[in-house]
Amino acid sequence: MAIKGNIIIGQSGGPTAVINSSLAGAIEAAKDAGVKKIYGMHCGIEGFLQEDIVDLSDHIKDSQDLALLRRTPGAFLGTCRYKLPEIEGNEEVYEKLFSIMEKYNIQYFLYNGGNDSMDTIKMLSDYAAQHGKPQKFMGIPKTIDNDLPITDHCPGYGSAAKFIAAAVKEIIRDNGSYGISRTTVCIVEIMGRHAGWLTAAAALSRGADCCGPDLIYLPEAPFDVDDFIARVKEIAKKKKSIVVAVSEGVKLADGRFVCELQGGEDKLDAFGHKQLSGVGAFLAEKVKEETGFKSRSIEFSTMQRCASHLTSLTDADEAYGVGYTAAQKAFEGLSGMMVIIKVKSRRPYIADYAQFDIHEIANVERKVPKKWITKGGTDVSNEFIAYARPLIIGELQPHFAGGVPSHIVLDTK
Amino acid sequence: MAIKGNIIIGQSGGPTAVINSSLAGAIEAAKDAGVKKIYGMHCGIEGFLQEDIVDLSDHIKDSQDLALLRRTPGAFLGTCRYKLPEIEGNEEVYEKLFSIMEKYNIQYFLYNGGNDSMDTIKMLSDYAAQHGKPQKFMGIPKTIDNDLPITDHCPGYGSAAKFIAAAVKEIIRDNGSYGISRTTVCIVEIMGRHAGWLTAAAALSRGADCCGPDLIYLPEAPFDVDDFIARVKEIAKKKKSIVVAVSEGVKLADGRFVCELQGGEDKLDAFGHKQLSGVGAFLAEKVKEETGFKSRSIEFSTMQRCASHLTSLTDADEAYGVGYTAAQKAFEGLSGMMVIIKVKSRRPYIADYAQFDIHEIANVERKVPKKWITKGGTDVSNEFIAYARPLIIGELQPHFAGGVPSHIVLDTK
Repeated sequence: MAIKGNIIIGQSGGPTAVINSSLAGAIEAAKDAGVKKIYGMHCGIEGFLQEDIVDLSDHIKDSQDLALLRRTPGAFLGTCRYKLPEIEGNEEVYEKLFSIMEKYNIQYFLYNGGNDSMDTIKMLSDYAAQHGKPQKFMGIPKTIDNDLPITDHCPGYGSAAKFIAAAVKEIIRDNGSYGISRTTVCIVEIMGRHAGWLTAAAALSRGADCCGPDLIYLPEAPFDVDDFIARVKEIAKKKKSIVVAVSEGVKLADGRFVCELQGGEDKLDAFGHKQLSGVGAFLAEKVKEETGFKSRSIEFSTMQRCASHLTSLTDADEAYGVGYTAAQKAFEGLSGMMVIIKVKSRRPYIADYAQFDIHEIANVERKVPKKWITKGGTDVSNEFIAYARPLIIGELQPHFAGGVPSHIVLDTK
Repeated sequence: MAIKGNIIIGQSGGPTAVINSSLAGAIEAAKDAGVKKIYGMHCGIEGFLQEDIVDLSDHIKDSQDLALLRRTPGAFLGTCRYKLPEIEGNEEVYEKLFSIMEKYNIQYFLYNGGNDSMDTIKMLSDYAAQHGKPQKFMGIPKTIDNDLPITDHCPGYGSAAKFIAAAVKEIIRDNGSYGISRTTVCIVEIMGRHAGWLTAAAALSRGADCCGPDLIYLPEAPFDVDDFIARVKEIAKKKKSIVVAVSEGVKLADGRFVCELQGGEDKLDAFGHKQLSGVGAFLAEKVKEETGFKSRSIEFSTMQRCASHLTSLTDADEAYGVGYTAAQKAFEGLSGMMVIIKVKSRRPYIADYAQFDIHEIANVERKVPKKWITKGGTDVSNEFIAYARPLIIGELQPHFAGGVPSHIVLDTK
């Protein structure tokens, strides 16, 4: 394997707790292969188009920097949400991109992201194939949503799932503290507009010391408000504390988002905007109205993707692994592919890396299998637990200083 | 010190991440002193009035149970929000309480809570003094709000502050990931209706690797919406990522809560209720309206008091210490007092326990000193940092099983 030039790595889309572990993996692979210059795109392809490029050897100098990089949430290089245009009719965009690569002698181009970001790798590798360009393009999977196809799961998901499972368990403890006085309902709203992988992770809180959420609603199953209220009333006959996990994207049978139910022209905020508070707040209010129970809602919001103080070690190691493998495969001459995780065995957990044609991956969304959704769309099966449990095992301990986790920051001055 | 009978311990008010560490401390003090029966009130004084009492030796059997107890969020015994009535005219309530104590030969009565809960200790010890009852009553401080007077700080605050500091730092990383495209504002709404201790803790995120929140608003200083927007616009001239920490309880100069500004009859939800979304959501919408910047809000909600996966070891140890000391002092014959923490030195950190007359403590709220609020009410001083930093140092590591923290649960069947 002869290294023919320099490498560049970019980050794209929403960050995860382990996005920078993939960066660390790619950097170490490039170092191991003896690549001369290891570049980073500042803010993804959007920054690259403006030639906003950093020399990573100026920023990640030693193993301590790499260790901190693996423990830093957010996109160290900065990210973007930017979709390359169709090649046909926009050749000048691609000519510019390739001229920048040539200027810096970039032969290997790695891009770390989700569905939309994989489209960038597809377009660039297609253009390279059409125009006989030598550069190699490899995708590195990354998304808390876990909705990329082909790969068993996506780096970023395990840590988000671990945070959700731990936080839901803690909320169940908190909510259960008010024993005698009255029924208390807590609705936890979890990310995932179209796929329920993150919401399903709430079930990982279940164990000998925790009954888990009483109801779990994924966007893959239709939601019925009356049925929901009836179930809450039924559960309340047996216990005082009720915790419900609901995906932000749950939909009615007619396809409307549940949170749209609260809408209407009379539901304007102080600025005259249509108020779109989340489905959690809506359902908590509905419970209060229909049952008189005390109820509240909690949204984890971006904590789901940035709470790196509780990172899954399995996830962090795999994020590193896909980053390392992507660089390695590019050096071997592969292009237009994304690295995938193949799981040979879930118990004991044995996983390996491979690669797959980017055309089968870009812009495709994978959802939770219908057969894993149980109890009339209010729970997930043991198959899901067996699938997800290994992904949340182990902890990448933060390096604490002054009581808070230490990070490393890109100085772009 | 001759032990004269049994002990009972109760938990009251909102739980904290370390409320059960105080319970563990009291249990071990009673064991060390050779107390025969160690009882717990199921759901505080409310449960006690119904003779809902557990024998803790049935539930906390060994050192492993105690270790798990220290790592369990929520109130292990269950809690309540129940205020005892005035003694005069309600003697029958007190007669009932004391007859239950006599029935179980309870001579030592410990109650763990905040301002309202300390009122229970005051009433019971007053009644005992008036009626020549021998029982001893001691209060154990506990509140994430840190608003009890006399004590240097309150157990529960350090862990909440640590979670807030870490989470705000992670949110700053996440928010800063979107570098080039546009200004992104994130409003973090933090608990504390009347006192800003928790919101001030957001400043603990600041360090060599983090600038901290750009603006910090405590309820102790009047809030001006126009000034806030002007400051956001000013900051946006220098940086693309802006993070603001705001207390849920910030008020206008005229005393109204800021979140009331959005109100009005036209602001009804689907059920005809007046919509009271939080101040964070309100300010995020206001920023969008006035500046066009991308903006969002995040509420930590009950995570602030139950995220025991990130517990301050200093806080957990002190919670244990006040629990242990309260029992010890009761055995020595003290009554009608609350254990307090005295800090001799903040660097190096040296703290000790003492006790103080409950009459000076019950129902009194301590706020953040005005002189610690700086930059026109938008930041806190280094004095605050020096005060709070030692309280978030160290981590009480969870015991993980299956990727999530293990807890211990009271089986009340």
